[in-house]
Amino acid sequence: MAEIVPQIPKGFRDFLPQKLIYRQRVMETIRKCFESFGFEPLETPTLEYAETLEGKYGQEGEKLIYKFEDKGGRKLALRYDLTIPLSRVVGMYPELVKPFKRYQISPVWRADKPQKGRFREFWQCDVDIVGTRSILADAEIVCIIFTVLKKLGFENFTIKVNNRKLLNGIVIWGGIDEKRTADFLRSLDKLSQFDAETVQKELRDKGFPETALSRFFRMLEDCKDSSNLLSRLKAQLSTIPSAAEGIRELEELFQYLGNYSIPSQQVIFDLSLARGLDYYTGIIHETVVEEPKIGSITGGGRYDNLIGLFFGSDVPATGASFGLERICTVMEELSMLPPCATSTQVLFTLFNHDLLRTILSLATQLRSSGINAEVYLQEDRLKKQLGYANSKGIPWVIIIGPDELQKGIFVLRNMGRGDQEEIPLSRIDEAVRRIGTCARGQS
Amino acid sequence: MAEIVPQIPKGFRDFLPQKLIYRQRVMETIRKCFESFGFEPLETPTLEYAETLEGKYGQEGEKLIYKFEDKGGRKLALRYDLTIPLSRVVGMYPELVKPFKRYQISPVWRADKPQKGRFREFWQCDVDIVGTRSILADAEIVCIIFTVLKKLGFENFTIKVNNRKLLNGIVIWGGIDEKRTADFLRSLDKLSQFDAETVQKELRDKGFPETALSRFFRMLEDCKDSSNLLSRLKAQLSTIPSAAEGIRELEELFQYLGNYSIPSQQVIFDLSLARGLDYYTGIIHETVVEEPKIGSITGGGRYDNLIGLFFGSDVPATGASFGLERICTVMEELSMLPPCATSTQVLFTLFNHDLLRTILSLATQLRSSGINAEVYLQEDRLKKQLGYANSKGIPWVIIIGPDELQKGIFVLRNMGRGDQEEIPLSRIDEAVRRIGTCARGQS
Repeated sequence: MAEIVPQIPKGFRDFLPQKLIYRQRVMETIRKCFESFGFEPLETPTLEYAETLEGKYGQEGEKLIYKFEDKGGRKLALRYDLTIPLSRVVGMYPELVKPFKRYQISPVWRADKPQKGRFREFWQCDVDIVGTRSILADAEIVCIIFTVLKKLGFENFTIKVNNRKLLNGIVIWGGIDEKRTADFLRSLDKLSQFDAETVQKELRDKGFPETALSRFFRMLEDCKDSSNLLSRLKAQLSTIPSAAEGIRELEELFQYLGNYSIPSQQVIFDLSLARGLDYYTGIIHETVVEEPKIGSITGGGRYDNLIGLFFGSDVPATGASFGLERICTVMEELSMLPPCATSTQVLFTLFNHDLLRTILSLATQLRSSGINAEVYLQEDRLKKQLGYANSKGIPWVIIIGPDELQKGIFVLRNMGRGDQEEIPLSRIDEAVRRIGTCARGQS
Repeated sequence: MAEIVPQIPKGFRDFLPQKLIYRQRVMETIRKCFESFGFEPLETPTLEYAETLEGKYGQEGEKLIYKFEDKGGRKLALRYDLTIPLSRVVGMYPELVKPFKRYQISPVWRADKPQKGRFREFWQCDVDIVGTRSILADAEIVCIIFTVLKKLGFENFTIKVNNRKLLNGIVIWGGIDEKRTADFLRSLDKLSQFDAETVQKELRDKGFPETALSRFFRMLEDCKDSSNLLSRLKAQLSTIPSAAEGIRELEELFQYLGNYSIPSQQVIFDLSLARGLDYYTGIIHETVVEEPKIGSITGGGRYDNLIGLFFGSDVPATGASFGLERICTVMEELSMLPPCATSTQVLFTLFNHDLLRTILSLATQLRSSGINAEVYLQEDRLKKQLGYANSKGIPWVIIIGPDELQKGIFVLRNMGRGDQEEIPLSRIDEAVRRIGTCARGQS
């Protein structure tokens, strides 16, 4: 066989150890936090029937689904998100006890144009509660977002909250054709990226009536004064049932968030928040960080009608999705998690094979104390073996030659500081203590 | 939108929480063991260019690769195993420090005929050492297989070992056309499933000469007497350099395995072991369990020429692959790991919303002590809430109503035993201690 140029498709990535260890630590923190709130893991297949995914993600999303035919002529599709598979699962296993609280951390695929920070294969971390209309469920989701981000070390973030019922009510109040609500909200969603004038122009170009638009944007302007905002809106929109209900739900949400002891400045009501997807029906939310400018790092909300597509009757649901790629980007840029060059904590050098039994026995002892211990696998000059530890970033080296063996000691060398000490062979616990202090994944 | 029948493609699976938690515990044990030997994680993309995978898996394997064209007309393929992507990675990043010791635990896809225990999407756990010809590396791989299986609780397993160099030598010794070695070994590999006569007949039908076959099978028969087997073979095959080298490597391997303190009856030399894939070049191995009958649960060996396809020059490598599906099947059938219904350890019942602040504060305390604590999300009869905990398999429930709050206590109920006790609100640490004793993933 001829030599092949080693390459991978555009928009796809290899995660080499150092990068992957970092991501695994982030995912582990997220996973543990989800479980601490009583969420259980779920895993759905990579491939779904294409018809399961089709017609769910809007016109733009539809184009990005990876689809192909299997040999039997069935159309298959790569997972596009984690919400539709969850809905399919709830429909397929009616025996699942409700409320069903699950999380899933998995890659999804989108045939998007690859560009900086945008990939065709990327990870989502989703947490959802299926089977209750209780606003306490929405509050718990917001609390989880807050708790996960705090655990990861985020400080300057804001969770923006709104309610689709309120937005739908405003559409009615503004005199906008209700059938065009989704289209209106898709433009409105761009307010996080563009200024009000740009969005207003887009809406005007789409043919929304000028009177409605100016009425709506005047209301948005009024909202900049946040004092008693919900009460003021309640008075203004009292005749629109949908708006009134949306406001009532938001009030209930904020009351619960107080019980969760979440600082009120970190969860704010933002009437301009719309969320892009059509399927939301109630409370919606999104998290932004001040620095770096990167867009939202979480998004989600209530979707009470989506699962009904698979279940026959409506099953209420609410949840959030964490964008692992953006979260890792922010954490790296702000050096929020000290990078960890390798998961290996100590390297045993190999002087000659006669020492193997001693070395392997010590390595086994370290391993059973939870230390990741590598043994150098061939005889080489000590300098080369230390160079190997250095270039891999292994923080400690244990050296045992014939002299050390005779003296009944081993040498423990700290590669960062360059110093070393002699420890009796019988005191391997000393080495465990020293090495263990810089263990991986303390979070 | 009309209701859709919720279903998934044949050969694919949803992992609902209970099943997935079990698998995660198994994978976590494997992962930790890999890392304890100084192996680092690697993750490669789900999709590779088809040409990366083509021509590597033999005629039969080739047909099972999932392939499709992207919109740019490039042929893509779903990952078929973890060895070819590793080889591609080594070729693509020459800066990787050698020996490169990596593990990868990922799904792979094969368009195989779905049948009991065989899936189109299944998980492999691979561990490989790239960049050294040292037989100590092969010994370490065998030691890792032994250690992982012991950690998982396996007792009655045998790691069978052979060497492709020895087999190649025997092919020459038997007077078989060397060009047909791969074909010969593919048939030989069936000795683990069929008796010698059946395999001999297949070889005869393939046109291998009768004299060579009877000579070879007589040698196999002689091998049933395992005393001094390697020495006897060494004498018999002394004139065939390849065989002599293979035997020398095996002797070196067994010497190292002694240093690793692996019981000699659990790693045996088996001349009939051939392994199906063409790319092996040296020591090969495979693990079988006595009960249940399920085929091998690990397989692997040395492949010194494969990476050269991507690298230009040869890079030696050796490794093993653990079959997660079979391992989980055996563990379930033999009840080796107590099943764990849920990752949630305790449920707080909700009597009314006035108690929320107290409940949420206690739940937060439990969570920060590492307990997975769920709060029931709506007011319901106590019986219904206890029924929920029961049907989910949550082992503990904490009950706080207005009476308990007034008395300054909460009730901790053990759902399995059905008994309960009153604990002062200030002694949440008591609850942590009781609940913590049955934590998940103690392994």
